[in-house]
Amino acid sequence: MTVRFPVDISLFENTAHTPSQFTLERSMGPNARQLRDYCIPVNSYFPSAAMMKQLTEQFQRAIRFYPATNQQIARQVAACFGLDPDCVVMFNGATELLSWLDTALVTDPVLIPIPTFGRWTDVPKASGRKLVLCQREQHVDFRLSVEQIVSTVRHSNARTLVLCNPNNPTGACLGRPEMLRLLDELHDLPLIVIDESFLDFSDLPQPSVASEACTRQNLVVMKSLGKNLGLHGVRLGYSVSHPDTAARLRNLVPCWNINAVAEMVIHVLGDHLAEYEVSRQQVIQDRRFLSRQLKTVDGVTVFPSQANFVYCRLPQHVSGDEVRTRLLTEHGYLIRHCGNKLGADSSFLRVVARPAEESSDLVAALKRILHRDLAISA
Amino acid sequence: MTVRFPVDISLFENTAHTPSQFTLERSMGPNARQLRDYCIPVNSYFPSAAMMKQLTEQFQRAIRFYPATNQQIARQVAACFGLDPDCVVMFNGATELLSWLDTALVTDPVLIPIPTFGRWTDVPKASGRKLVLCQREQHVDFRLSVEQIVSTVRHSNARTLVLCNPNNPTGACLGRPEMLRLLDELHDLPLIVIDESFLDFSDLPQPSVASEACTRQNLVVMKSLGKNLGLHGVRLGYSVSHPDTAARLRNLVPCWNINAVAEMVIHVLGDHLAEYEVSRQQVIQDRRFLSRQLKTVDGVTVFPSQANFVYCRLPQHVSGDEVRTRLLTEHGYLIRHCGNKLGADSSFLRVVARPAEESSDLVAALKRILHRDLAISA
Repeated sequence: MTVRFPVDISLFENTAHTPSQFTLERSMGPNARQLRDYCIPVNSYFPSAAMMKQLTEQFQRAIRFYPATNQQIARQVAACFGLDPDCVVMFNGATELLSWLDTALVTDPVLIPIPTFGRWTDVPKASGRKLVLCQREQHVDFRLSVEQIVSTVRHSNARTLVLCNPNNPTGACLGRPEMLRLLDELHDLPLIVIDESFLDFSDLPQPSVASEACTRQNLVVMKSLGKNLGLHGVRLGYSVSHPDTAARLRNLVPCWNINAVAEMVIHVLGDHLAEYEVSRQQVIQDRRFLSRQLKTVDGVTVFPSQANFVYCRLPQHVSGDEVRTRLLTEHGYLIRHCGNKLGADSSFLRVVARPAEESSDLVAALKRILHRDLAISA
Repeated sequence: MTVRFPVDISLFENTAHTPSQFTLERSMGPNARQLRDYCIPVNSYFPSAAMMKQLTEQFQRAIRFYPATNQQIARQVAACFGLDPDCVVMFNGATELLSWLDTALVTDPVLIPIPTFGRWTDVPKASGRKLVLCQREQHVDFRLSVEQIVSTVRHSNARTLVLCNPNNPTGACLGRPEMLRLLDELHDLPLIVIDESFLDFSDLPQPSVASEACTRQNLVVMKSLGKNLGLHGVRLGYSVSHPDTAARLRNLVPCWNINAVAEMVIHVLGDHLAEYEVSRQQVIQDRRFLSRQLKTVDGVTVFPSQANFVYCRLPQHVSGDEVRTRLLTEHGYLIRHCGNKLGADSSFLRVVARPAEESSDLVAALKRILHRDLAISA
């Protein structure tokens, strides 16, 4: 094993989340080299150069003035995405919404299909909620049927359902007709939270149920914007819900929870929606390419995905830790295995769709590690 | 009345906070001109040009990567300000801390001396807390004595005390010996929150009680950083409390509540602390200058301040609305009267200390309005 990137591997221990690229690079000390990230599911093609230029020009002024209130920024977001402004509340990243929902709106038992985004299990656990975990099964590509969700809700007496659609990390996704059927069946459940953070990268037709949230009292649809816009340092997300629920959330969250850089992003975004659409289509192409490439790796099982990442499984008896460490220290490629996720293990990888050439590089490195270094046969 | 700045004055109606400079400038339509703000108590001398350059250079990279967690950034803040890292929790602006405190730590009745920062009364009121308001009195320059606070706490059976020190908007401030006596007397009160957001602009010797919070279970000391650093668009503040309370707060707040630009500010701040100290001293000089200048306006009463603003009162029978409107539309100077603050009225102005020349301009305009246009005599 030739260590070309002497990263401190112990940084991966005892953490529910992958250490940041900065932290890993700094751990290499004076020989630090830039790593390539396949870990954070971010749009590689946005913001466009034109938008980044506009942001940079306005940066100094933005940070020296107070941002507008939550409600004022929500109106701009609603105009940008064709939503009803009374239904929209802004959040300092999806995790802020998640914390406030857990504090104020969630009643337990909470039904959460797993594997899922770690905060959806960590936050309610930390606050003492009763969780009902429902395993997504590999033999059906981690898809859940409407009937299965409804029956699990009924049998568990769950009062809250949290569903990431598409699911993170598996990429499994319900289409809009199935989602509407689910919402109808569970019209009497006190709270349904649908996390559509990765839905922009689905190729299903008009898959969002955000507009439903304006009329259904028990529905909160949320979306993180940072990763979609390629600006995840900014912290930006929003919820769509019935105006009564929106008013309640708006009352709870700090009225200036959106920073001026995030406000500026929203302010200029309207001028760049056509470029965003191009970037979105490009990411979908990249995800399809990555899927096809990963399927050429003998012994690796690849699952269908409607997000901007692909979930796959290493061959039996291969250590996910070893593959991750080799990719990182020999090639400088940072990937995420799911050993710290409930309902998954380290044999599962969530690989982010990057531009085709970078996907090819990763797949070549993976083949070399599996078939040459570890001598795994299919 | 010559309207040179045709601002939409109705924007000041029905709001607890002054409309933003951007909003007011936009309301002028195509003839928009830049207003001068005497409203937001921000450090005029920071960040230094060198620091702003560093921030601008790192901006594009920062917003495209995830920020570190709350705890990691808290460690940097603790190192920067000589605090115990176990006691520090970061907040997305002081208002985020205020919302979480109200949700999780505050029990009522809550004793709040008024006038005060509007969120300190609005947030607990909105969440249905019982408030006990204690009026700061003009005849003692809005100062409170330790005895008065303790006796009001005892008589009202308050379980939480919130004290802004220095007070916003009056600038009244208790020194450290008095604060320690207060903390000793109220050692059995479940919660004491001290908001030291403006304490950097006091000329009292070592006035902070932040270090006390590490050992006193019932004390939370908070500080907003944005205004001190001249970067209030960034949203940045922190609390210092006993490690047990800090752990509880850390569990509640979203673990990535600090955006990457705020993280970058903390990361580079250590290199610019000497410049910050110079800026801080300069602001103190400016506040002293502003006080002296305001005292030359016949009929205006000026109160002692330990913050970066000066509280003063217009002559009897002068309308605060009219003075504000004339300053804004004739001179382009945006000031704040306290007509929408509990415990104050529109005859009180909170004027921010700006560089001497700008203070002189404002005072000249105020004299002209009072003594020429309105023909008020002392």
